[in-house]
Amino acid sequence: MTPGDRPSAGYAIGVDIGGTKLLGVAIDGTDEIVAEARVATPQGLADLTEDDRGEVSVEVAGAVAQVVGVLQRTVAGAATGEVGPPVGVGAPGMLDRSGVLRFAPNLLGASGADILGLVGTRLPGVSLVVENDANCAAFAEHRCGAAVGAEHALMITLGTGIGGGLISGGRVLVGAFGFAGEVGHMLVDPSGPPCPCGRRGCWERYASGGGLGRLAREAAYAGRLQSVVSLAGGDPEMVRGEHVTRAALEGEPGAVQVMEELGWWVALGLANLTAVLDPNRIVLGGGLTAAGERLLEPTRRAYAELVEGARFRPAVDIVPAVFGERAGAVGAAMVARNGGLW
Amino acid sequence: MTPGDRPSAGYAIGVDIGGTKLLGVAIDGTDEIVAEARVATPQGLADLTEDDRGEVSVEVAGAVAQVVGVLQRTVAGAATGEVGPPVGVGAPGMLDRSGVLRFAPNLLGASGADILGLVGTRLPGVSLVVENDANCAAFAEHRCGAAVGAEHALMITLGTGIGGGLISGGRVLVGAFGFAGEVGHMLVDPSGPPCPCGRRGCWERYASGGGLGRLAREAAYAGRLQSVVSLAGGDPEMVRGEHVTRAALEGEPGAVQVMEELGWWVALGLANLTAVLDPNRIVLGGGLTAAGERLLEPTRRAYAELVEGARFRPAVDIVPAVFGERAGAVGAAMVARNGGLW
Repeated sequence: MTPGDRPSAGYAIGVDIGGTKLLGVAIDGTDEIVAEARVATPQGLADLTEDDRGEVSVEVAGAVAQVVGVLQRTVAGAATGEVGPPVGVGAPGMLDRSGVLRFAPNLLGASGADILGLVGTRLPGVSLVVENDANCAAFAEHRCGAAVGAEHALMITLGTGIGGGLISGGRVLVGAFGFAGEVGHMLVDPSGPPCPCGRRGCWERYASGGGLGRLAREAAYAGRLQSVVSLAGGDPEMVRGEHVTRAALEGEPGAVQVMEELGWWVALGLANLTAVLDPNRIVLGGGLTAAGERLLEPTRRAYAELVEGARFRPAVDIVPAVFGERAGAVGAAMVARNGGLW
Repeated sequence: MTPGDRPSAGYAIGVDIGGTKLLGVAIDGTDEIVAEARVATPQGLADLTEDDRGEVSVEVAGAVAQVVGVLQRTVAGAATGEVGPPVGVGAPGMLDRSGVLRFAPNLLGASGADILGLVGTRLPGVSLVVENDANCAAFAEHRCGAAVGAEHALMITLGTGIGGGLISGGRVLVGAFGFAGEVGHMLVDPSGPPCPCGRRGCWERYASGGGLGRLAREAAYAGRLQSVVSLAGGDPEMVRGEHVTRAALEGEPGAVQVMEELGWWVALGLANLTAVLDPNRIVLGGGLTAAGERLLEPTRRAYAELVEGARFRPAVDIVPAVFGERAGAVGAAMVARNGGLW
């Protein structure tokens, strides 16, 4: 191999398939983001059923290829080699080791899709890997983000659902079939609200974007969120997580209180994961962390109460992801360059 | 080193400190149990508070040394070397990497005890290791028990409390501080009954010996366990888990139904751990497994309903521990011979 054959001078491309958008980045050989692209997740994807999966899977693969195409063209001018940059794709849910998305409660229309195969046919000649999105995020944060130096770390993404990338002994745990880290589906209240996964009381019913929306609407109906309701057009039913986050950042007392409640639920799941895995750092990412310390501070406080034997264990840092909402995409690119998680 | 110097021809001694008894075994070079000894856990230990810890810790260490002494004398005749067999001690709860039992909700009187130091002074010249009891059990079952060949396995001990030994990639997970596997203290119902650990609704309030007793008393007061109440002397308050186990094994319908309820709660925690760790085998040990298929069968049935995406994942075997109640002690001996878990 001569220097000219290097895969695009160290560039790599990553795409994170989310519930609302596909976010792609190109990184250079020093892991700096040099380009970014996004498209909306194919319409209604999250609400479709398994029966629609054939068509939807094709659309998802097309959207991934579209984002990759934009990024390939962006870095092509800078690239020195003939070989295109490797591409990594992060997908939510139970992704098996052959790149098939077995089950994705928050992306039901794509459940069953052979992501690796469908994207691969659209990107001939490209070195392609597909991994769980939170595993990608954990990889990025452990390599050069908020989990650097923490050999036992949890990366938890609080978005449409909750994803988990679990680092033990410096490696991302994948489990027997690739399904490890489905932490949003720990049952934390057997009599709780129904979950798209088919059960009741999953953690992500409480501590995700959907959970924040529900807490916010409860507060709105109880008259504790007047200004937020105005922001949402006057109808408590229209209150969304984003409204509360914005109001909390502005210090609106009702919204701050909702963030306290949300932090309690976030902490509950973190305490459970601490009992199981004993991390020394916890990194929080995903859309909900846009609330910053308004969410992190009450989460830390509740965690100290909810974790087993808090007085007898060293403190565990709970910190925001360095890569923010781009952690999954950046991680996917890094995993692609690495040829896999390990 | 000449053959005569081998540590007691491959013998090793293990002692499992339980909530009701200390169980010790000696194993030979082929891992066969050649001797066994047990003493009652120093009286009232489980009910004592942190204030009593100094005195109690000394008593526990004395009890360990007593069991070890009996086993040393038993194998001394068979041993050919001058060096005594290595000794492993398994302790429940949050045992740190220096051998200090930081916090043990079901052995509060020994919380804070420097187990390694206290036992070490009583066994001068002995090669000694101290490990979490369920980690020891997992080590034994993975080496030559029910988890052989399963690189991602859970060993769950259902006894006075619930212990967990988590195997990932063929190794027991220990976590950042040695506290991994404290699975009994996952919160599964925030409004549940109080736990000795200081919180509410821990899994082990439902799926341990104490949980079985509570389910049984509820059934007894509801008139569903008449024959078991007779067995317990006519007072529903006196019904214990052992009574129900015995009656369930005899097919008594009310007791069988209580086992179904218990199995549901066992399955709930196993489903949570599967979401987090994605094992391909789950091994159940501890006193509750004396109920055999009367507990395992309803557990498997409920697990298939409670695990995320059951239809989309390969089946996970749920099997009894080969070493039964001796798994912790046998594992402690094996870990001692191995010089540690890894």
